[in-house]
Amino acid sequence: MAVYTDVSDEELTAFVADYAIGDVLSAKGIAEGVENSNFLLHTTQGFFILTLYEKRVREDDLPFFIGLMEHLAGKGLNCPQPVKTRQGQALGRLAGRPAAIVTFLDGMGVKRANAAHCFAVGAALAKLHRAGADYPVKRENALSVSGWRPLFEQARERADTVMPGLAQAIAEALDALEQQWPTHLPRGVIHADLFPDNVFFIGPELSGLIDFYFACNDDFAYDLAIGLNAWCFEIDGSFNLTKGQAMIAGYQGERALQDEEVAALPVLCRGAALRFMLTRLVDWLNVPPGALVRPKDPLEYFRKLRFHLRATSAADYGFSR
Amino acid sequence: MAVYTDVSDEELTAFVADYAIGDVLSAKGIAEGVENSNFLLHTTQGFFILTLYEKRVREDDLPFFIGLMEHLAGKGLNCPQPVKTRQGQALGRLAGRPAAIVTFLDGMGVKRANAAHCFAVGAALAKLHRAGADYPVKRENALSVSGWRPLFEQARERADTVMPGLAQAIAEALDALEQQWPTHLPRGVIHADLFPDNVFFIGPELSGLIDFYFACNDDFAYDLAIGLNAWCFEIDGSFNLTKGQAMIAGYQGERALQDEEVAALPVLCRGAALRFMLTRLVDWLNVPPGALVRPKDPLEYFRKLRFHLRATSAADYGFSR
Repeated sequence: MAVYTDVSDEELTAFVADYAIGDVLSAKGIAEGVENSNFLLHTTQGFFILTLYEKRVREDDLPFFIGLMEHLAGKGLNCPQPVKTRQGQALGRLAGRPAAIVTFLDGMGVKRANAAHCFAVGAALAKLHRAGADYPVKRENALSVSGWRPLFEQARERADTVMPGLAQAIAEALDALEQQWPTHLPRGVIHADLFPDNVFFIGPELSGLIDFYFACNDDFAYDLAIGLNAWCFEIDGSFNLTKGQAMIAGYQGERALQDEEVAALPVLCRGAALRFMLTRLVDWLNVPPGALVRPKDPLEYFRKLRFHLRATSAADYGFSR
Repeated sequence: MAVYTDVSDEELTAFVADYAIGDVLSAKGIAEGVENSNFLLHTTQGFFILTLYEKRVREDDLPFFIGLMEHLAGKGLNCPQPVKTRQGQALGRLAGRPAAIVTFLDGMGVKRANAAHCFAVGAALAKLHRAGADYPVKRENALSVSGWRPLFEQARERADTVMPGLAQAIAEALDALEQQWPTHLPRGVIHADLFPDNVFFIGPELSGLIDFYFACNDDFAYDLAIGLNAWCFEIDGSFNLTKGQAMIAGYQGERALQDEEVAALPVLCRGAALRFMLTRLVDWLNVPPGALVRPKDPLEYFRKLRFHLRATSAADYGFSR
């Protein structure tokens, strides 16, 4: 949950006046998104989400994210659609921060995903990959393989305070990944953070995707690997093969994986686990005094990595022809 | 802000099915209320607020609060109206906690109240006192004069860690208040916590009152004293007489203060300041490790108390015939 910035009613009213969405009736800070401040805005014309971008999101990247949501919504993908001011701007400033208003999307994140949810997520991911294919703006993935060693260097010295032997285990995994990381897989726009918080369902139906603030250009199959990590493990750390089968089948129904992507799946899954372990570890070791946000457990991804290190082929994730 | 309890989509859907408010489309944890968890609920029939009562609210008191909102809404006061289940229950259980659904109220708290806001708040307070007069359920005020010494005892030893001399200053103020506290003022249902967070405005118009979870039977003029403390001081600790005049005039327009209430206003204001100083002090000294809620500054009310100790009559707050 996150509301980092307090916005006064006067500032808000003045900000919203630039948009053709009616008068402000209410604005409530909502517990959604870890990186930004979000408000559910009610105006005389309906409900919207107002996002204030906090410092962890680079301001230079915002046009990529905002433009992408607009592009994907235009292709019929259910995602928040940026609302423009009367002057045609989708990005403004409020309370000293970049800010945007997007359409309100119904639905809820599921707490206990089942195989049907995983199937729907796989299908949505592939649709996103197709819909983003002709998005002209580019953004490299700062959190792909070349970004992991710098993260590790920030955490190396104190990693063993989290778990004895962690620094050594990361070093070994990282060395191997830097050697093995695939370089010529099909690529395009990926979501890169499609966790259960970021997928909405209404009843059993997937109603939309949110939070595109890690989206970037990278390997499509890496996005699927992130999804397998985020959705297909049980609380106890075990991999649920039925969910893996469902997610991969859902994906393949919309976009067939190429042989080289299938072959790379274990290494991509290891990379995805390491990426989330590293960012969580850095956050864990750098909680500011008085922080209002509890960091997520990096060791959850250490346990997932251990599973991936034993996987020998995509069949271990539920892939079949 | 506060979302203490996580509710799964399955639990929520099952809970809402008992109400005739349609199917759940979304539920977002909102940053509202310090004591409870609140969710903005969207169903196929509209928007509602779902509240889960956390342990600081005594479960035995809930029928008083819920019944009061229903009573006040029935009298035309703009406040959340409890929604009943198909079986006629306004109070249920969700995620192991007592829970209620109330109607959604538009409007926003003002960050910088002006005299017109204060006038409106005074008027709303008096209307609440009139509307609550025939509410048959009773609830004594556990945070009135007899409750302050026990609070002080919890904080006395460590009070001077917050400010040297604080324990002695509180002891003196408390001794005097226990002597001087009025006993025969007009009384009835009071809000007892009408801070700017709990009053909604749409533009300049007061659109409603929320958060009745400190409401109780006590002196009407004590509620006004709480309001003067909460609304009429500037950030620098100075009392804004124009705002005080406005709040008292707004109140008197709806309910005339009796002579004994006018005479008691300075002592009631001292009591109100001490009450909020003490609860804030106890919270300040007892922040649990890892707490996600930052406690409010008790010294804000120490500074207000100092002003009240110099006040000699209601004229110092802006009262005039």
